[in-house]
Amino acid sequence: MEIPYKIYLSEEEIPRAWYNVRADMKVKPAPLLVPNTLKPATADDLSHVFCDELVKQELDNDHAFIEIPDDIRNFYKMYRPSPLVRAYCLERALGTPAHIYYKFEGNNTSGSHKLNSAIAQAYYAKKQGLKGVTTETGAGQWGTALSMATAYFGLDCKVYMVKVSYEQKPFRREVMRTYGASVTPSPSDTTNVGRAILAEHPGTTGSLGCAISEAVETAVSNEGYRYVLGSVLNQVLLHQSVIGLETKTALDKYGIKADIIIGCAGGGSNLGGLISPFVGQKLRGEADYRIIAVEPASCPSFTRGKYAYDFCDTGRVCPLAKMYTLGSNFIPSANHAGGLRYHGMSSTLSELYHQGLMEARSVEQTSVFDAAVQFARVEGILPAPESSHAIRVAIDEALKCKQTGEAKNIVFGLTGTGYFDLVAYQKYNDHQMSDYIPTDEELQKSLAQLPKVEK
Amino acid sequence: MEIPYKIYLSEEEIPRAWYNVRADMKVKPAPLLVPNTLKPATADDLSHVFCDELVKQELDNDHAFIEIPDDIRNFYKMYRPSPLVRAYCLERALGTPAHIYYKFEGNNTSGSHKLNSAIAQAYYAKKQGLKGVTTETGAGQWGTALSMATAYFGLDCKVYMVKVSYEQKPFRREVMRTYGASVTPSPSDTTNVGRAILAEHPGTTGSLGCAISEAVETAVSNEGYRYVLGSVLNQVLLHQSVIGLETKTALDKYGIKADIIIGCAGGGSNLGGLISPFVGQKLRGEADYRIIAVEPASCPSFTRGKYAYDFCDTGRVCPLAKMYTLGSNFIPSANHAGGLRYHGMSSTLSELYHQGLMEARSVEQTSVFDAAVQFARVEGILPAPESSHAIRVAIDEALKCKQTGEAKNIVFGLTGTGYFDLVAYQKYNDHQMSDYIPTDEELQKSLAQLPKVEK
Repeated sequence: MEIPYKIYLSEEEIPRAWYNVRADMKVKPAPLLVPNTLKPATADDLSHVFCDELVKQELDNDHAFIEIPDDIRNFYKMYRPSPLVRAYCLERALGTPAHIYYKFEGNNTSGSHKLNSAIAQAYYAKKQGLKGVTTETGAGQWGTALSMATAYFGLDCKVYMVKVSYEQKPFRREVMRTYGASVTPSPSDTTNVGRAILAEHPGTTGSLGCAISEAVETAVSNEGYRYVLGSVLNQVLLHQSVIGLETKTALDKYGIKADIIIGCAGGGSNLGGLISPFVGQKLRGEADYRIIAVEPASCPSFTRGKYAYDFCDTGRVCPLAKMYTLGSNFIPSANHAGGLRYHGMSSTLSELYHQGLMEARSVEQTSVFDAAVQFARVEGILPAPESSHAIRVAIDEALKCKQTGEAKNIVFGLTGTGYFDLVAYQKYNDHQMSDYIPTDEELQKSLAQLPKVEK
Repeated sequence: MEIPYKIYLSEEEIPRAWYNVRADMKVKPAPLLVPNTLKPATADDLSHVFCDELVKQELDNDHAFIEIPDDIRNFYKMYRPSPLVRAYCLERALGTPAHIYYKFEGNNTSGSHKLNSAIAQAYYAKKQGLKGVTTETGAGQWGTALSMATAYFGLDCKVYMVKVSYEQKPFRREVMRTYGASVTPSPSDTTNVGRAILAEHPGTTGSLGCAISEAVETAVSNEGYRYVLGSVLNQVLLHQSVIGLETKTALDKYGIKADIIIGCAGGGSNLGGLISPFVGQKLRGEADYRIIAVEPASCPSFTRGKYAYDFCDTGRVCPLAKMYTLGSNFIPSANHAGGLRYHGMSSTLSELYHQGLMEARSVEQTSVFDAAVQFARVEGILPAPESSHAIRVAIDEALKCKQTGEAKNIVFGLTGTGYFDLVAYQKYNDHQMSDYIPTDEELQKSLAQLPKVEK
């Protein structure tokens, strides 16, 4: 059977249920802990911050499949199923016998896979009768996705955008505003935590940790609002399982058995979604795959972090999670472009990695942009810097196949497009991009501040 | 048969031949004229500027179908067939009984339909053994598409970008550079015409007409280069017929008969491509459709221009074309956002309009952005300002159906995305967008300078 350039499923083949990989894990991810008591967080603990149905999903380690409501499936139909693309042109350019496939999640205005979870979270907020939601955004990918989702359901959306991004990335901000979201540069004078930070550091350009704290405070202090988050959480990985489920359906349709599955990893939303059904098969002993998580060498939580309980935000208002972490005070060096800058990693992925079900690899950003440009020129799509981490390793593995003569099937996640990352591309084009690998001393310093949690 | 949200054809259903509507026209579009002799341009006249095969296509009024070479079809497979989308969410939001469909050409990195012709033009340049091509670009949509196409075939690409855009739209410029194109702000000191203009107007921020002249001069004065153009020409409309052919195949597949077909019109590349197979049916007496060209009220060549021979560029180095024109010195007012700013209109479309085969309507830009935002919030996609002209009229027609209770099938062309047009959206969001309709006196002034050409 000849494989087309793009394998498109029909709308009927969009999954009817998300897959919850935790149900198939014998050792479950460690529970979230309440910051002041260090006790496992209950639904009650979480429900003043998150929507009720999302809290249920967050804590559900038992149900393997959770039905996707029709309203969400109908929204998915506007941009899904996303294509699984055979990278014929890249294969030819590399001269590799490997077959390369990528699941492309960038064909929507948010430009990434983030929309898959944003629409689900907005739906449950609407169903609960809320007025709106709050969130933080750094570069703006998640904020854009959420503003599209809340516009669709007629919800209010308050986004705290890290001040430096707010000023340097006005276009992302305008997309959010066009979709009706209010975007506030953080830190701001709209919250206690923001005012306190501004008083202490008047010239600060903000941080993701501070924006999270402001968004959470706004959610809990406004009637009818809850806080939503675009990565790291179990619920997000659950929603993102549509990526992996569609990928598996498309591969199965053409009788293709993946040998290597590659995804970029920041907080884990894309990687977790892409690999979950394949990891499920591994957990159930039905099939084996090499799975590779790719992270920036400048923010190497899997490859150089510690598996321990840590704060999820620098403001320390959110529950603690057990994860591979660099310490909640860790901030990637200023030359780091794009996302994948979170200090920790999804608890579920961390536990899977700990159990040896996947590998991890870190790559430096100049080599990532080399791969991005090589890919763009033959495959047409200008990739997001985040996605390009996966491209780098896919190319490396395809070149190994060229040496060994193996026709392996390599599947990677192309999470999004780089249309709002052109400042980084400009640096690359002008040969002004640099790499930075944190020293052992730096990492020891930020890891020394991990909270003490009894085993 | 239930109609899905997105009608996707298979790759096998990508057209194998472009459709040349001129073959079915009894009265053909008027020929191009050589500027100094005012005689019809022959292949010899054109071949020092354009690629040989493209000159053949430009002058071919006889062959209804021209085969699409495999290399081009394979490139098309990376982003085509483009979806024909049923706008269920927009219909619901409007409460209209009309069925609205749009052919979405924005799912590629160039962000528009321009890539359909760019890849064809690059292919013929490569086949002719050329080193590279030159072109001009305003906002950068065409330049981006061309740089993607030349990167794919390993050709050099020299883009003259209007200086004000070069400085104000650095991101489009960076996409082109990422694909390996050299981008020169125009006017520049790399050409005689550029140096002359700079000497006369040292502070000028450039114009499309000047950039065309620089690109043509560079093509004819460099061994192994030719000039390529993204709109207006017959060859471009020919390549763009893939849009209409796919649209027709998708409609036929579900037994849908379009009642109204709507496209935005600047130079005519998208409109001509979208409507050509449908106009062909009209010309052959096989079917009837209402066809509406939508143009900006600030640049109203169809609705307020004159059908006459005119210069295609302000530098007056290119052949003359008979077209609906506002005069080659006409420049839309400074508040005009986005493209659709060409003073004339494709000769083929002009002749079809003259024969009464289509209608034209002009719309003001604030109402265009109203429609764009309404569309974005329910259909997800942030549209290009150009495409939003068609959205405006599609919504207007759907609202008429609401009044009359008619369930008409409305089809429009969504040519691209607005990801690089956020300065315009910001103006709209800040309520600082204004409208401008040129006065009769202004138009009379620019039309008074039309060249004298004997009938």
